[in-house]
Order: sequence, then structure tokens, then C-alpha cells
Amino acid sequence: MKDKTFLMIPGPTPTPESALLAMAKHPIGHRSPEFSAILKEVFQDLKWLFQTKEDVFVYTSSGTGAMEAAIYNLVNPGDKVLCLIIGNFGERWAKIAASKGAIVEKIEVEWGKAIDPVVLKKRLDEDVNKEIKIVTLTHNETSTGVTNDVKTLNDIIQTHGALSVVDGITSIGAIEFKMDEWGADVIVSGSQKGFMIPPGLAFLACSQKAWKVYEQCKYPSFYFNFGAYKKNAQDDTTPYTPAVSLIIALRETLNMMKQEGLDNIYLRHARLAKGLRSAIKAIGLKLFVEDDEIASNAITAILPPEGISVADIRKTLKNDFDIVVADGQGQLKGKIFRMGHLGFVSERDMIASVGALEMSLYKLGYKFKKGAGTEALITTMMQM
Amino acid sequence: MKDKTFLMIPGPTPTPESALLAMAKHPIGHRSPEFSAILKEVFQDLKWLFQTKEDVFVYTSSGTGAMEAAIYNLVNPGDKVLCLIIGNFGERWAKIAASKGAIVEKIEVEWGKAIDPVVLKKRLDEDVNKEIKIVTLTHNETSTGVTNDVKTLNDIIQTHGALSVVDGITSIGAIEFKMDEWGADVIVSGSQKGFMIPPGLAFLACSQKAWKVYEQCKYPSFYFNFGAYKKNAQDDTTPYTPAVSLIIALRETLNMMKQEGLDNIYLRHARLAKGLRSAIKAIGLKLFVEDDEIASNAITAILPPEGISVADIRKTLKNDFDIVVADGQGQLKGKIFRMGHLGFVSERDMIASVGALEMSLYKLGYKFKKGAGTEALITTMMQM
Repeated sequence: MKDKTFLMIPGPTPTPESALLAMAKHPIGHRSPEFSAILKEVFQDLKWLFQTKEDVFVYTSSGTGAMEAAIYNLVNPGDKVLCLIIGNFGERWAKIAASKGAIVEKIEVEWGKAIDPVVLKKRLDEDVNKEIKIVTLTHNETSTGVTNDVKTLNDIIQTHGALSVVDGITSIGAIEFKMDEWGADVIVSGSQKGFMIPPGLAFLACSQKAWKVYEQCKYPSFYFNFGAYKKNAQDDTTPYTPAVSLIIALRETLNMMKQEGLDNIYLRHARLAKGLRSAIKAIGLKLFVEDDEIASNAITAILPPEGISVADIRKTLKNDFDIVVADGQGQLKGKIFRMGHLGFVSERDMIASVGALEMSLYKLGYKFKKGAGTEALITTMMQM
Repeated sequence: MKDKTFLMIPGPTPTPESALLAMAKHPIGHRSPEFSAILKEVFQDLKWLFQTKEDVFVYTSSGTGAMEAAIYNLVNPGDKVLCLIIGNFGERWAKIAASKGAIVEKIEVEWGKAIDPVVLKKRLDEDVNKEIKIVTLTHNETSTGVTNDVKTLNDIIQTHGALSVVDGITSIGAIEFKMDEWGADVIVSGSQKGFMIPPGLAFLACSQKAWKVYEQCKYPSFYFNFGAYKKNAQDDTTPYTPAVSLIIALRETLNMMKQEGLDNIYLRHARLAKGLRSAIKAIGLKLFVEDDEIASNAITAILPPEGISVADIRKTLKNDFDIVVADGQGQLKGKIFRMGHLGFVSERDMIASVGALEMSLYKLGYKFKKGAGTEALITTMMQM
């Protein structure tokens, strides 16, 4: 049906009506007192969301832009960067670091697994001369649906002394993250995820320790420059024209998030994810991430039943139910489908999605006890 | 009055209702066939608007991001860049080039003047060893309201052999520009200007000659990478998540622009600008740019009458008429006010604005024949 599309991809995610309508208003001047008042509020709320006392820079870019910002403000050619890679987006850190002339070393694990803290500790312990300047990691890996134990990994990195640079693009606003308490040096995120607004904004916060490294950067980024953004943040403004409409929408969704509260937000995401996982098992499908401990609360990767293709499942969900789910990426293309359940997603959406998935699978010839998935979903969600 | 604000700043500019309402729709997936079909249309229309057969890259950033893209994909540290500076935004090219390690040389003129082609020719003729690799220039200087003769300057640069890198941020969609015919190597622009949508998108096209220089760039930008955008443009997509809502709005305004036609768009802007200039003279105020030949058709800078401050004029226009005009920038702050008349601006808006300016000046104690400005405006516009 026209206008009925429901996005269950890992971004863009559904956007609340109040944010959409805020975007339909005439833009206002980005140097006006009215807009500065909005930015002031947004800056404060972002600090709360990131759990930091540091400034959170608002970039007009995709999340990848903020990843570039992190690297291009900290790395000089020849610096050693250790990239912890558990999927496609972990690999992106390595590519960005290499593009700035860094010497990139990788710790890679099989897709579907998380970084083993023991392996990281061993490598950093070996680095007695402290050659490794930066360690990049992914909080929630969007390509596989795995969540790293960022708190534990950060502890190890802090003990070594390198900077921890964290991709929180699909975790912030969905999965617990505490920048200051966990000692993360740089965290980046993007608007079309837990923030519940369309793509176009990215966020970055950096620690005092990272700031000192920035001050040694020979040719820091101009557009994403830490110094320029920090200086302007003091005056509740941005150095260059921001996407004003998106920022005004963000004010709406940040207000919604404050009303719900961080703990409730994280619990809601956990409830939806655990419910979905039990539904998938009840239907008899396989979860790509078998270990519940590392399974993402923001996105779930699912293997199709034998003899039914990912393409057919996606097509049926879209054509018959107006639900869009994602294919696998890279080596997982056609092997898994991914259901995003982050941001503006409720229990009601989950019930509808699991029911629609059941009907789709049944239509495609996969046999199982009808309603089994929905029953497991409801039962699990009610227990939390 | 609430919701009555009319922006006459040089960006953001007013946005048509159809584009605003397009932004209020739920975002769709950026990897969907539906979105690729939209991008295909937008890519084609941008080629028409830029008058080029080259791909036009759509970046999610401000215009400054596209300026960084130009420099960071072409310059290696130590390269010589000649910056032609006639105001604040010409100076920005120099800062970005320096941030990438370029050796920057400047040709600067007094603010309010244009680059003299004779001076540029002399300097480039002296460069017999062809050390100058890139010449940056500004088509329409937003800080002063001066339009450079880009066609003539480009001819001189092409004869020398350097790349011409042009800031078309407030010219594209308002003032004639023909990329291929004029031999511009790189042109950049931004969405909140002649494109008539809110800020958040930037555009860049580069010539085959510039492409060869990009291929020699040692550490090209990752987020703004020419190669990644070109490769993805072939498949009607972008390498990273774009601001989908803004692109859908852009499709609306590009359709409006095609219906109006390029010649009519340029003529409309000329008519509004010349009308305003004659109105300002009739009221007895001074234009910052005295030479009609170089005066911008997108923005007009005006000196306040003696004894009346720029701040008071801006305040009265805003409080009594909901019209927002801009202050001067940098050395011109408080010395001029700037009226933007680019994008979604009609004769009717101009009549209202000149009338409101007359009433504001009168209220502030400046005496002149009431209606003189409006009469001159109408007379001039009717002659074109």
C-alpha cells in the first residue's frame, strides 16, 4: 500500500511524526538567536545521551563523515593504528586510517563473533614501546548484529595508553554506552539510527586525552576540524552551515528520549531483540549470532531456511506487508537477512513484523507451527 | 507574526511548499530501487543545471564540505595553489588549501571589487615553470555581492594549464554558469541557495583534466573521495548514507527549475537584482558594489544611511516585517547589510521587501520621498 512502508533496516529507521513535521517547516537562519537556542538545547541533550561532560560536535554528514573526522583529526601519516574488526564497519575504520597514511594493523575475527578481550590484551601487552597510538573498535557491528563489550575493551586500551576510538553509529540511543565512565576517547554516531531522524547528521565527542593528540595533528581536517567545532559549540553555533531542518527534528526526538529515559530506552531495545530471537528459534530458523551474550539489541541477522532465498523473503515482506528488511553485506550477501529494531520501534511493530515474517515464510513453502514465532515473541517480551 | 518569517539572507533561502512537504515524508531506504530511481533523475538534472556531461557528486555536507572535497582530492602537501580572493569565501579556499599542506599564494583585491583578468594573466604568464597547479576562485562572493567574470578568468587559467577550481555556492541556479563550455575543472555548490532546499547537501563536478590530478593525489579524502562517488554514481547510488529527505526535496525543486528554464531563472535573478539596485539608489542609499558590471544578481550589499545602524535596520525589518537580512561579515560587520534574492524569490517578494525597507528606514528617522524605492523597483523590473 502506498505510504505504508515500514523500515526494518539498520538505518534509516522510522521517524516520529513530530520530527517529520518539524522538518516540513521553513528553514530558519543558522546564525539567528532562535537557532542558537535550539542548538544549545540539542548540545545539552546530546551530552546526556552520550553520558559525557565533553562537547558533542554535530556534523552535517553521514556517520562515515564522523568516522573520517575522528581519524583525520588525530592521525599523522606513519602513526600506528590497531583496528579491531568484526565486520564491514570495523573494516571501514581500517580503510579510513589507511587513507590518512596510518600504518594499519588488524585484529580480525570471524564474522558473527565479538572481539576477545584476552586477544586484545595480549597484543597491547606486547606493544611495550607504545607504538600503537589508536585502537579503533565498533560498539555494535551493523553488518553482523554483534555487540562488542566496549567497557571491557576500553579498560584494556586505557591501561595500555592508546586512544580508544569507538563507532557507536548503531548503538547510541539503543544500547547502553557511557563515554566518560567507560573511558572512551572518541565516540561517533549518526542521526538515522537510535536518534530517530532521517540521515544527514553525525555526532562526535572526544576526551581531553584525545584533544591533546588532536593538537599534535599536522594537517587536521578542515570541514570536520575539532578546534573549529569546539570553539563554535561554546557560542551555541557551528562553524559551517548545518542541516538546520534535521537539527530542529533532532530536538523533537531528543525530547522524546528524555521523556522515556535512558534505562527504559535500553530495556525496550533489549526486550524487542530478545523477543525476536526467541521467535526466530521457535519458527525453526537459525540466528547468525548464536551467542546470546554478544547478540545485538539493535539488529538481528537471520539465516533463511534451506531452499528459500534471502531475496524471496525480502521481496515477500516488502510486496505483501510493506516491511523492508536488509540483505547481508559483503561476504554475507544473500546468506542472511537483517532486521533492524532500533530507534522508533515498539512492541506493536515487533508483533506485526514477526507475524508478517511467519506468513511470508509459509507462503514461500517453509512449514512450521503457525503462530509459534508470535507466541514466543510475546512470551519473552512479557517476561522483561 | 508566528510562521511569517521571510529569509532574505544568502542562505538558507526560502523553500517551496512541495519541497517542504516532500521532507515531511518518512525516509525510504537509501539502497532501495525506489531511491535509486530518484537519484538517477536528480543526477541527470544536476548535469543540466551545471551544464556538464560529467557526473555531479552529491555530498551530505555544507558547501564548505564540497570545497574541502575539491582540495583534499587534488592537492598533495607542497603543491602550489593560487587563490583569487575578493572576500570571505575566497579566503576560505586559501585556508582549506593550507590545511592540506599546500603552498598558498594569494591575489587579493579590496572587498567590493572583482578579480582583474589582466592581473591574473600577468601572474600566470610569469609562472613559466608551471609551478602553480591549481587556481581557486569564487563565482559569486557572498560576503560582498560581487560576481567574478568566471568565463574570462577560466580562459586565462586554461591557457596556463593549471586547474580552475570554482566556488559556485551562491551562483549555481541563480547566475549563468556553463561548466563544460567555460572549461571549469571543478565546480562546487550547496543546497540552501539557488537549489531552493534547506542546507545539508553539497555538489561537486570535476573535469577529465581534474580527474587525472586526483589520480596523483597521495592521500585523497575518504568521505568525499572522487573515485568512490564516481563509481557509485554509475549505479545511481552514493557510497555512504545520503540525506535522503533532502534529496527527495531536491527532486521537487529541480523539476521546478526545469519548468522555468535556465535562461528564465537567470533573467529572473537579474531582474530582481537590478530592480533592487535602482530602488536603493532612488531611496538615496549607497550600494557597496558601485560597478553595475560586477554586481551580483544573487545578493546585494547596502550601506546604511548616516546615523542609522545596520543593527537597527535589521531589527526593524525583522520585528515589524518578519524579513531577515544579513549583517556584513568580517571587516564589513556593522558596515553593510546584505539582502539575498536568490532561489525561490519572486517579483512580489521584492516589492514587499523594498516597501518594508522604506517603512523601516522612515521609522528610524531617515527621510526621503516615500515610495521612491518601490517606484524605481517596479519601473526597472518592468523594463526587463
